[in-house]
Amino acid sequence: MASMATRFTNTPSPFHSIQRTSYTHLGAPVKVSISTSKSKKTHLRLRVSAGLIEPDGGKLVELLVEEPLRGLKKKEALSLPRIELSSIDIQWVHVLSEGWASPLTGFMRESEFLQTLHFNSLRLPDGSVANMSVPIVLAIDDAQKHSIGDSTSVALFDSKNNPIAVLKNIEIYKHPKEERIARTWGTTAPGLPYVDQAITNAGNWLIGGDLEVIEPIKYHDGLDRFRQSPAELREEFTRRNADAVFAFQLRNPVHNGHALLMTDTRRRLLEMGYKNPILLLHPLGGYTKADDVPLSWRMKQHEKVLEDGVLDPETTVVSIFPSPMHYAGPTEVQWHAKARINAGANFYIVGRDPAGMGHPTEKRDLYDADHGKKVLSMAPGLERLNILPFRVAAYDKTQGKMAFFDPSRAQDFLFISGTKMRTLAKNKENPPEGFMCPGGWKVLVEYYDSLVPASSGRLPEPEAVLA
Amino acid sequence: MASMATRFTNTPSPFHSIQRTSYTHLGAPVKVSISTSKSKKTHLRLRVSAGLIEPDGGKLVELLVEEPLRGLKKKEALSLPRIELSSIDIQWVHVLSEGWASPLTGFMRESEFLQTLHFNSLRLPDGSVANMSVPIVLAIDDAQKHSIGDSTSVALFDSKNNPIAVLKNIEIYKHPKEERIARTWGTTAPGLPYVDQAITNAGNWLIGGDLEVIEPIKYHDGLDRFRQSPAELREEFTRRNADAVFAFQLRNPVHNGHALLMTDTRRRLLEMGYKNPILLLHPLGGYTKADDVPLSWRMKQHEKVLEDGVLDPETTVVSIFPSPMHYAGPTEVQWHAKARINAGANFYIVGRDPAGMGHPTEKRDLYDADHGKKVLSMAPGLERLNILPFRVAAYDKTQGKMAFFDPSRAQDFLFISGTKMRTLAKNKENPPEGFMCPGGWKVLVEYYDSLVPASSGRLPEPEAVLA
Repeated sequence: MASMATRFTNTPSPFHSIQRTSYTHLGAPVKVSISTSKSKKTHLRLRVSAGLIEPDGGKLVELLVEEPLRGLKKKEALSLPRIELSSIDIQWVHVLSEGWASPLTGFMRESEFLQTLHFNSLRLPDGSVANMSVPIVLAIDDAQKHSIGDSTSVALFDSKNNPIAVLKNIEIYKHPKEERIARTWGTTAPGLPYVDQAITNAGNWLIGGDLEVIEPIKYHDGLDRFRQSPAELREEFTRRNADAVFAFQLRNPVHNGHALLMTDTRRRLLEMGYKNPILLLHPLGGYTKADDVPLSWRMKQHEKVLEDGVLDPETTVVSIFPSPMHYAGPTEVQWHAKARINAGANFYIVGRDPAGMGHPTEKRDLYDADHGKKVLSMAPGLERLNILPFRVAAYDKTQGKMAFFDPSRAQDFLFISGTKMRTLAKNKENPPEGFMCPGGWKVLVEYYDSLVPASSGRLPEPEAVLA
Repeated sequence: MASMATRFTNTPSPFHSIQRTSYTHLGAPVKVSISTSKSKKTHLRLRVSAGLIEPDGGKLVELLVEEPLRGLKKKEALSLPRIELSSIDIQWVHVLSEGWASPLTGFMRESEFLQTLHFNSLRLPDGSVANMSVPIVLAIDDAQKHSIGDSTSVALFDSKNNPIAVLKNIEIYKHPKEERIARTWGTTAPGLPYVDQAITNAGNWLIGGDLEVIEPIKYHDGLDRFRQSPAELREEFTRRNADAVFAFQLRNPVHNGHALLMTDTRRRLLEMGYKNPILLLHPLGGYTKADDVPLSWRMKQHEKVLEDGVLDPETTVVSIFPSPMHYAGPTEVQWHAKARINAGANFYIVGRDPAGMGHPTEKRDLYDADHGKKVLSMAPGLERLNILPFRVAAYDKTQGKMAFFDPSRAQDFLFISGTKMRTLAKNKENPPEGFMCPGGWKVLVEYYDSLVPASSGRLPEPEAVLA
């Protein structure tokens, strides 16, 4: 995976101040200022905000306990009432600990939860607004609530009884499951994957508070080096001297249509006057539904795409976004975009039906395919982010490759759906040449092949493990 | 109803400029500036914003066609594709025509609809935000959509074939009913009154555009003189020299607990330094569910309350709010508050479980009783409004009257629920003395008595009628 190495370094090379203003058709004038940055001792505390878009609320809120205090914090955790976390809970601890959800300081209290449900945004003390569309909450049941009693702090443990974090100044409030589901997904139909997995059987209470995470969350699945935090990504972009960062969220294998889109976006940014736009290719690494391709296989596939030269490693950073997936369409795409601001992205590519899926009980898509980008473009707290709508790519039979769809000669184009792609790969058939680089396709075929012994079951997702 | 007369006049008496800043515990410093206002020729175009809180978006958006052009507009309507309005649709036309929903210029287009569903607010061209929590939309079916064809305008007719309005620069888009219901009510359970009445059987398309209303909407039920527009209310408040306006939304009979609350609010405002706080007692006049007391009876009851001296007519304006009721709790209370800003209110009294009801299929309230005031206090676009949370009043057995509940002597208090009140009135029994003024109680008993011949059915609601 040499080509995917992100060449992380603790010592960004110093460089001089640049000020540029570029007027684009994509929104307000873009001001990018890059000033000399200095290396500091503890790299996780280093703030590389100069030159990159500011994190929500002005600074990254990292919730990791400093190295020398970890022993003490572990001791404290052992003395507190305990809550056992599910693997999705731990993914949220991961998300919170690194500041993807800045300015959140922990699992949501009720005021944050209500603002998220009703306004998809939080009002900050200075009167400004940060986007926050997906509830990041921790559910507990009656027995756990009872065992907490009057304690103002609790300890969060994993299923193997390892202390993960302490939650301070807690607030316990009712978990209005039906309302949460209805307002987040716009439906309460049974069969929503995240709901089935994480809400239906969860406790009737939510517990919010300030999170103190004892150690960085690791999964020990060979992919941890791709799980860069927002601070690490900001360092990387600064090191690469990026004057624009465009993020591409994905949870599927990359085909040449995606690649075309990403290279074309870079071309457009160069045309706008940016000198060094960097692509953040950012596959989602948390919970996904059973019929999505698992992270490990997707990462193998992405590796091949870079090796085959479809994307330029010099201008691409591949990293894993630790969030679990909601499949909540227009509500969730805001979260996907907002989290990338915190990682330094000022451009966000949005496609057709982002974070969408089929309706769980009706024969239609759950969301209107255009609502995602419309909602994203109007979302409070995302005004600073430039939204780049997806241009539809399809297989151009006349050229034998993926190209932007031209409605004036629609008959020349072939749309290859995800279902079609899966069927081909399962049957070890090849897609039309030029649809996906051969190395990447081979990975997909291998993945579906690997399912056969387990009678088409799914490989387990990696879980966070303590070293 | 002499005591309820609002003494409307076209010529506000001029008075001099007053500037005051008062620091309260209720929110940001309140700045009230009252400057000389001048009378103008057409009273509906008069802007009496001086001294009162500004309407959302800076000015009241009234959508009534000027008198001399009405004939022409009617002619135009007769030449256009037609949409027949339901009585709830006409109530929304009424609401829009008078600027309660300022800055909306008509039924919502998709961008407004999506912002309402996701953010409960609209971003205005100047970057500011106006609250808008309830979709104000017009549904049409496939046949109507087909009949509109390529026309850019349509005419809106009532069920008796009278032209009501023209909708210009129309936009037709999908009506995502399930999503609309889930995001507005936080549930999709069957049995939500407004949903059953106005959404379930509505068309699969929504049509938005700029509304031009041919004539003021009238109901000819003897209550039209109480249906003052926001502009008329603003004139009235200015005429009365109000330096604070506090609004009380209600859809129930007024008992002495309400009265206590309203007089106590006035006392608190005087303590804060206001010289002349005026109460806007503002019963909702549009669609309500079958077991609510109908508007005509409520107005009779309110009249008695003023006649009996429970509220002071000198400092009270009784008027009818033309909106239909959603029973959408925390989502709807924002609409109730926002509309009152447009009518000049800068204080809003919010109670327990505003706009709430029982869950239609489960044995519990649909909303947490505290969510309404919490959501209201955090709602985007309502920062200028001072939210006055309800203090709970109950019947104090030791004093023989309604008093603010004192938890330290809970045993002295009797809570008389709406259900209890209804049961007493139906059985012609009296509530404890001091619960409601006798004249008001008599009206209630008469109302329930009137239901008996119709086998407990409900009197029909007044419908808008053309003169």
